Amino acid sequence: MLSFESDYVEGAHEQILQRLAETNLEQLSGYGQDAYCQRAKEKIQEACECPEAEIFFLVGGTQTNTVAIDAFLKSYEGVVAAKTGHVSTHEAGAIEYHGHKVLELPEHQGKIFGNELKALLENFWQDENHEHMVFPGMVYISHPTEYGTLYTKAELEELAAICRSYELPLYLDGARLGYGLMSRNTDVTLPMIAKYCDAFYIGGTKVGALCGEALVFTKKNMPGHFLAVVKQHGALLAKGRLLGVQFDTLFTDELYFKISRHAIDMAELLKEGLLQKGYTFYLESPTNQQFVLLNNEKYQALQKEVAMGFWEKPDPEHTVVRLATSWATKQENVENFLALL
Amino acid sequence: MLSFESDYVEGAHEQILQRLAETNLEQLSGYGQDAYCQRAKEKIQEACECPEAEIFFLVGGTQTNTVAIDAFLKSYEGVVAAKTGHVSTHEAGAIEYHGHKVLELPEHQGKIFGNELKALLENFWQDENHEHMVFPGMVYISHPTEYGTLYTKAELEELAAICRSYELPLYLDGARLGYGLMSRNTDVTLPMIAKYCDAFYIGGTKVGALCGEALVFTKKNMPGHFLAVVKQHGALLAKGRLLGVQFDTLFTDELYFKISRHAIDMAELLKEGLLQKGYTFYLESPTNQQFVLLNNEKYQALQKEVAMGFWEKPDPEHTVVRLATSWATKQENVENFLALL
Amino acid sequence: MLSFESDYVEGAHEQILQRLAETNLEQLSGYGQDAYCQRAKEKIQEACECPEAEIFFLVGGTQTNTVAIDAFLKSYEGVVAAKTGHVSTHEAGAIEYHGHKVLELPEHQGKIFGNELKALLENFWQDENHEHMVFPGMVYISHPTEYGTLYTKAELEELAAICRSYELPLYLDGARLGYGLMSRNTDVTLPMIAKYCDAFYIGGTKVGALCGEALVFTKKNMPGHFLAVVKQHGALLAKGRLLGVQFDTLFTDELYFKISRHAIDMAELLKEGLLQKGYTFYLESPTNQQFVLLNNEKYQALQKEVAMGFWEKPDPEHTVVRLATSWATKQENVENFLALL
Amino acid sequence: MLSFESDYVEGAHEQILQRLAETNLEQLSGYGQDAYCQRAKEKIQEACECPEAEIFFLVGGTQTNTVAIDAFLKSYEGVVAAKTGHVSTHEAGAIEYHGHKVLELPEHQGKIFGNELKALLENFWQDENHEHMVFPGMVYISHPTEYGTLYTKAELEELAAICRSYELPLYLDGARLGYGLMSRNTDVTLPMIAKYCDAFYIGGTKVGALCGEALVFTKKNMPGHFLAVVKQHGALLAKGRLLGVQFDTLFTDELYFKISRHAIDMAELLKEGLLQKGYTFYLESPTNQQFVLLNNEKYQALQKEVAMGFWEKPDPEHTVVRLATSWATKQENVENFLALL
Repeated sequence: MLSFESDYVEGAHEQILQRLAETNLEQLSGYGQDAYCQRAKEKIQEACECPEAEIFFLVGGTQTNTVAIDAFLKSYEGVVAAKTGHVSTHEAGAIEYHGHKVLELPEHQGKIFGNELKALLENFWQDENHEHMVFPGMVYISHPTEYGTLYTKAELEELAAICRSYELPLYLDGARLGYGLMSRNTDVTLPMIAKYCDAFYIGGTKVGALCGEALVFTKKNMPGHFLAVVKQHGALLAKGRLLGVQFDTLFTDELYFKISRHAIDMAELLKEGLLQKGYTFYLESPTNQQFVLLNNEKYQALQKEVAMGFWEKPDPEHTVVRLATSWATKQENVENFLALL
Repeated sequence: MLSFESDYVEGAHEQILQRLAETNLEQLSGYGQDAYCQRAKEKIQEACECPEAEIFFLVGGTQTNTVAIDAFLKSYEGVVAAKTGHVSTHEAGAIEYHGHKVLELPEHQGKIFGNELKALLENFWQDENHEHMVFPGMVYISHPTEYGTLYTKAELEELAAICRSYELPLYLDGARLGYGLMSRNTDVTLPMIAKYCDAFYIGGTKVGALCGEALVFTKKNMPGHFLAVVKQHGALLAKGRLLGVQFDTLFTDELYFKISRHAIDMAELLKEGLLQKGYTFYLESPTNQQFVLLNNEKYQALQKEVAMGFWEKPDPEHTVVRLATSWATKQENVENFLALL
Repeated sequence: MLSFESDYVEGAHEQILQRLAETNLEQLSGYGQDAYCQRAKEKIQEACECPEAEIFFLVGGTQTNTVAIDAFLKSYEGVVAAKTGHVSTHEAGAIEYHGHKVLELPEHQGKIFGNELKALLENFWQDENHEHMVFPGMVYISHPTEYGTLYTKAELEELAAICRSYELPLYLDGARLGYGLMSRNTDVTLPMIAKYCDAFYIGGTKVGALCGEALVFTKKNMPGHFLAVVKQHGALLAKGRLLGVQFDTLFTDELYFKISRHAIDMAELLKEGLLQKGYTFYLESPTNQQFVLLNNEKYQALQKEVAMGFWEKPDPEHTVVRLATSWATKQENVENFLALL
Repeated sequence: MLSFESDYVEGAHEQILQRLAETNLEQLSGYGQDAYCQRAKEKIQEACECPEAEIFFLVGGTQTNTVAIDAFLKSYEGVVAAKTGHVSTHEAGAIEYHGHKVLELPEHQGKIFGNELKALLENFWQDENHEHMVFPGMVYISHPTEYGTLYTKAELEELAAICRSYELPLYLDGARLGYGLMSRNTDVTLPMIAKYCDAFYIGGTKVGALCGEALVFTKKNMPGHFLAVVKQHGALLAKGRLLGVQFDTLFTDELYFKISRHAIDMAELLKEGLLQKGYTFYLESPTNQQFVLLNNEKYQALQKEVAMGFWEKPDPEHTVVRLATSWATKQENVENFLALL
């Protein structure tokens, strides 16, 4: 059975497993105070061209979003996000459970638009009853988005400028950041993200790690006593080395970027093959997630041999499926899949 | 440098690393729906002699306590615990942050006493103003306790009987459960714990795993939609396999018990050596944590060669240190330590 | 200066003040345990034709919504409401602050439609990832809505049927309930509301009281230890008599309905006068709030002599204002206002 | 039946009812924006000799404590209070429900001691694991305490100095503040409280008002967007006038102090009579709450004719009852009670 179901169906890149084994019996302090965490942080600072970046390693994406958003917001503030943002829809209400409203903006293939953000902020502050409403306290974007799409440099710059003029942190969810950065169709680099965003996370879980996300604060703005905040969320890993060793490995010799590029190469191969065979895409994604329109019979037939992600039914006769490549996708599997069509 | 600082200074047992490597490229579903999680659950049911046990794997101890306590309690209820319980003191207020008071009982070397629990419950219900107070909604114990001590079978039975008569869940924090079960001085077994407790967790982080705790509900009482509750806490691991493979390994061929016994053997060796050299113990611990009284000069001298856990200063001239052995403690290190005294 | 700014610009109906004075020095138990609260509850049960109704008096509307919603929902559930519902927009995020998402439905002049509610529920349960989403746990409607509009009996019946088939409580915010019930254009009665809704509140603050809302549970479904839940929210009034005496008075000799009818009579007079003078209404409201379209010059001129509620600017040249009548509106003030136009 | 059950068994002082009636039909803005709130604030500033004081009127005591504590604390902080503090015991866990731990200190007839506070703070900051613990974020005291006792000027000064050296707000719960200030045995004045405390509230509910507490921030330290915070708690009263008129009246011609002195006079009369008849007091209270030791027969006999507050059973043969006088206590009732003994 082939699987393009998601980008987290395999374990970890073999170099990570190897480093975990090599360092396994070293006796190290807990809670992220070990040398591997330290080294990983330095390498990330360097990759971001942001020597003052403060970095905290967390275990998963929803956890990272929740902790970061809680730590940034005051009790009466909410986070602005696209209607389709992960925090809006697929975190089981973690943001609200921890006390904050998600203030939804329209989505444009997963992205928010600067003019709509600006209008939301202007309307809020002009409303004479705004003290009875939820204050917009930060802005959340994902890059790549949940639809695989990417912001351009100009768009990021515009969002950052709006955020700064309203003194709101701009926060970027980079669960699949590597796949965004290695897209063939992007003018955005990691240092730019560090420049435009007040905080963001570099996703490990979906990009080669067993688990782990590197939360980066770029403006000397890590919330005070952040370790206590993380602990209070139940999010502080005792053996922080597990995260330190993984990110140290991922940011050594550009492993993170190399394996991300592989996923993009596989996605492009898949895309090309599908186009050649006359398939239609639900939207144009330049990253590792591809959204393909299938008629229902084809969908049912394929399901016997390929695990795919159901996305939605645009009409009764068709189904949109999500095909995800990853750092672990084998070229022969892509070819085998294409041969099935 | 020798280290007896804690029982989580090394990585994972080598068989775990090996199994992670062997299964690494298998394509598995996320969120705990994989075959390894399933198999691990069955093995734990068997070890507990509790075929109806429902098990959920979580990443860390504070996380597990927080999620379990939140899921059990109604909003107006609190959790009864010893003043020294981990939930009372060392979780950065995670229980309160998620809305619940810890109702403290006196501690007796880390344990609570049945008669004091009973008195608390009776007093609460007799108080005519109790609707203005926090309702006791469950009881938390740790085994081993934070002081390395253990409940006896009779004590567990008594606590369970009190809890049942008040319809309160009895919850056991087993962060170091293996070390308790393999103590040379206990009449408590895993099936007994499954019988007396309504829920408990089997600690992995401190007993051979990279991370992970197995939360066990023993009375067909896993809270409804528990996966959503876990997700909402940011505690749902995407690659659930990481936990499944580890617990599958730990509960194959009694590995969990064997490595726990090793830690106990090392602790007994340490204890014996210290006694022979005339050292005094702060309290009698039958598990892997030993609390030794040192005069300050000795303490300062030793610190240059041994990492130990500072516990407290009982008087200006002395210091109590905690020495922890673990599944990974080497006999030669114990001997080297004793030679230093 | 005339004021049609809101329906809470005056104090209380004089009969309420009189009863407060008459009963002032009686020595009564606190926290709602007094005879006036008891009597008020009985009168409300009778007015609702619901002898099993359980009633709790609270101080304000946002407070009542928050307490009721929290008490009904499990942690992983949210409340379904119109995008324009008071809980969605004008409670400063009180629902989210207490842990729950507001799941928004489109609004139709403030109302939700049964088919859209049904679709939301169907989609949720059909989504294979719904355990990662917020569960719809109850449905909130306001009657009259924030736009002054009313549900019909058939609409209420439909919503109730959908809620029952999904086992969701239907909750009605009756901040202005009297004005809805006394509308000339409604087929909904108080007993119907008690029949179709699982809980609702009868607004006092906007209908003749100094403060106070009567929260009614109609199906023997008051959440357990509700007094403790209320206390925990800081919402338990020490001198419960203040609420008991007021609702006892309002539900004696149909005072609540009589004074509500007066507000409707005044609103109709206002409407008629405006129509005669050629003014346009932003929407057709059958209750005490009227939404009138003014050109900007007229709006600015009027503001010097009349306090009105700014509603929105539908285009750069016009302004929509809200004019609210109440139990306290004097006919001469309506006439004076019309004379100004 | 006589009642000394509590100090909130009557309604409001007649001058308050009169002013509510006189101002009843004035059309006033909501949410505390009316002239009466403004005037009341100015009078309180004057009485506190603190022209920069910022004041917010809330409805009840638990509500005020909860809102103030939440607004002051960061998420990882708790409030230090006596084990017997109202926030620790009788608010149904409102503080924890809103996310914060109450860090308990021993109580000395309801008071905390400076040396114990200092020790708690020193120990916290010296503990190398303090990032895993709840940070002390503010200090709560009640004056009078729950036992009717009072801090001296020197004690307040000491607590304030400790708080300042640790940069912690000192917050005083003045539910019965008038009775404390008018005690015959105090050297503490209202301006001193304003000087030593960072915030405190002047209790209205127990001192002549129908409801209402005046929360005073003394150091230009009202938390930002406090109205939104209050609203989010469901604690913002629509008809703020109800609170404004009451406090305006209470702080006109020293009414608050005069009626408080009356309660003290009645308490002293009661005390004197009891002493003359040979009764023993459970503790020495200089305010309006008196705690008397009765043998059980006497207690049972008296209960038929007098409502008293049960306090505790110090031994099987005796009962401690609380007798509370108030602004409304009639001298003849005190005399009638004494005649019964």
